[in-house]
Amino acid sequence: MVPEATTPRAEQGGTRWSQPARASKSGLSGSSARDLSSSPTRAMTQPVPRLSLPATLALGSAALGAAFATGLFLGERGPAGLFLGRRWPPWRFRRQQRLLPPEDSPLWQYLLSRSLREHPALRSLRLLTLEQPRGDSMMTCEQAQLLANLARLIKAKKALDLGTFTGYSALALALALPPAGRVVTCEVDAGPPELGRPLWRQAEMEHKIDLWLKPALETLDELLEAGEASTFDVAVVDADKENCAAYYERCLQLLRPGGVLAIPRVLWHGAVLHPQQGDTEAERVRNLNERIRRDARVYISLLPLGDGLTLAFKI
Amino acid sequence: MVPEATTPRAEQGGTRWSQPARASKSGLSGSSARDLSSSPTRAMTQPVPRLSLPATLALGSAALGAAFATGLFLGERGPAGLFLGRRWPPWRFRRQQRLLPPEDSPLWQYLLSRSLREHPALRSLRLLTLEQPRGDSMMTCEQAQLLANLARLIKAKKALDLGTFTGYSALALALALPPAGRVVTCEVDAGPPELGRPLWRQAEMEHKIDLWLKPALETLDELLEAGEASTFDVAVVDADKENCAAYYERCLQLLRPGGVLAIPRVLWHGAVLHPQQGDTEAERVRNLNERIRRDARVYISLLPLGDGLTLAFKI
Repeated sequence: MVPEATTPRAEQGGTRWSQPARASKSGLSGSSARDLSSSPTRAMTQPVPRLSLPATLALGSAALGAAFATGLFLGERGPAGLFLGRRWPPWRFRRQQRLLPPEDSPLWQYLLSRSLREHPALRSLRLLTLEQPRGDSMMTCEQAQLLANLARLIKAKKALDLGTFTGYSALALALALPPAGRVVTCEVDAGPPELGRPLWRQAEMEHKIDLWLKPALETLDELLEAGEASTFDVAVVDADKENCAAYYERCLQLLRPGGVLAIPRVLWHGAVLHPQQGDTEAERVRNLNERIRRDARVYISLLPLGDGLTLAFKI
Repeated sequence: MVPEATTPRAEQGGTRWSQPARASKSGLSGSSARDLSSSPTRAMTQPVPRLSLPATLALGSAALGAAFATGLFLGERGPAGLFLGRRWPPWRFRRQQRLLPPEDSPLWQYLLSRSLREHPALRSLRLLTLEQPRGDSMMTCEQAQLLANLARLIKAKKALDLGTFTGYSALALALALPPAGRVVTCEVDAGPPELGRPLWRQAEMEHKIDLWLKPALETLDELLEAGEASTFDVAVVDADKENCAAYYERCLQLLRPGGVLAIPRVLWHGAVLHPQQGDTEAERVRNLNERIRRDARVYISLLPLGDGLTLAFKI
């Protein structure tokens, strides 16, 4: 390229691309050396195009560049991943956001394989549940194991489980309680718990699990009326999110000081970040998270397990 | 394009690109309709090129396609992310693998903002530590908070902290212990703990923290000789990974039944998956994970916090 000093803008004229023939001769510095030496004065005074390339070459290059950039953009944004069957980081490109990598991530598989100790009946129930509609809304295996460990840690005898579904978390808790332990679990739909019952029996835990087929709010009120406040060691709030704040308050009353309250799915597949208008569930989960954050009656941890697990330790 | 039936392969001749002039006339079905009607017999018998495009157009398209594919490939593989200052899922493209998203992920930031309750001195110490060399090897804030919550849950009075560094985890534990509580922490390098000491003082926790400037193994043996076996409530093993198995065994002896043992960095930035030859640290962490998995003396959870956090609950 000719240095800027020898091609002042005023001398260039209006067009950069209108002299392809001339540009093809003088544009490249190697071949233009002869032209310059043959008429040095002309080279100093004549307008010299700033970008001296044949028009077809320039247009071709621009088209190639545009195609490359389009590919780069698409490749980077993810649709390429879809074309090629690859998986993308869920928190960037999918509306459903999670913190953890896909379940087939080798590192996540390593973590599970080095820590999961699942009772055979519990494992069977998990696999059975995953075959059901909405089966993946069940508590995850590492959440259930952590919860069982915490129940053992505080020598829990009484546990509360709102939202039985097929009874995976109820069974995990029952297995962690002493022989005289009791899990009160409630569900409005009688179907899924009946799927789990044979496996409760297989694990010899059926006698510990007390299934109430009624709305969670009624269950909680009945327990409070029966004078069971401050008697539960562990509570899991995994029922509908419409009433999650009411469940939280009542469970806190039912827990003893030093009891553990666990609330799964508090990230609501990422929707808590910016709830869509009309998504009342996301808004209620978001409000509950705010409330718990400011609640001086509990110590808290929010763990990146499953779709987010809040642990509230009653003081 | 002319259907395959009218252009049998035997009639095509050897060249596909050698008749650009003809191709430009008969190639596009719309404009070729007239040619066909004027001499139908010829159209049926003459060789017709299969791909009928001008050579320059074909070559140009091929070049555009190649540029697009290159961009797509680069965009998908990650270097584009580097060009554009974006961050990529660490478990796919970086040698250092983590389970969690980058710290600036909005969902991770949400999780922290809705759960972190950090004492001002603890926060100052964390920010100070992050400015130090290897500062990011410190226990993460959500790990420290979980550990403090567990210490409160089991009403811990005595804690052990191998690998003081600047004393972030020691301070977090001290804040969770009752006034008469005691944290024994050990470090071989006197420098970093001296950075933290003013903040221990600021939090009025200095009297609870007992700093031993000696190798962790010596500390553990001295404690065992002093008859402190089964007296600790909490232990954190975050010293060198060379001796991690020995630390684990001795800490388990020092813990009381129902005590909590925490081991951070058990995924060793993903190197536990396939330790490189000669990477003895990765191999030892991997072996420790195997050992803990089979250890019937503890209940375990392996959490995707920081670089992996093993919690072992002594039975």
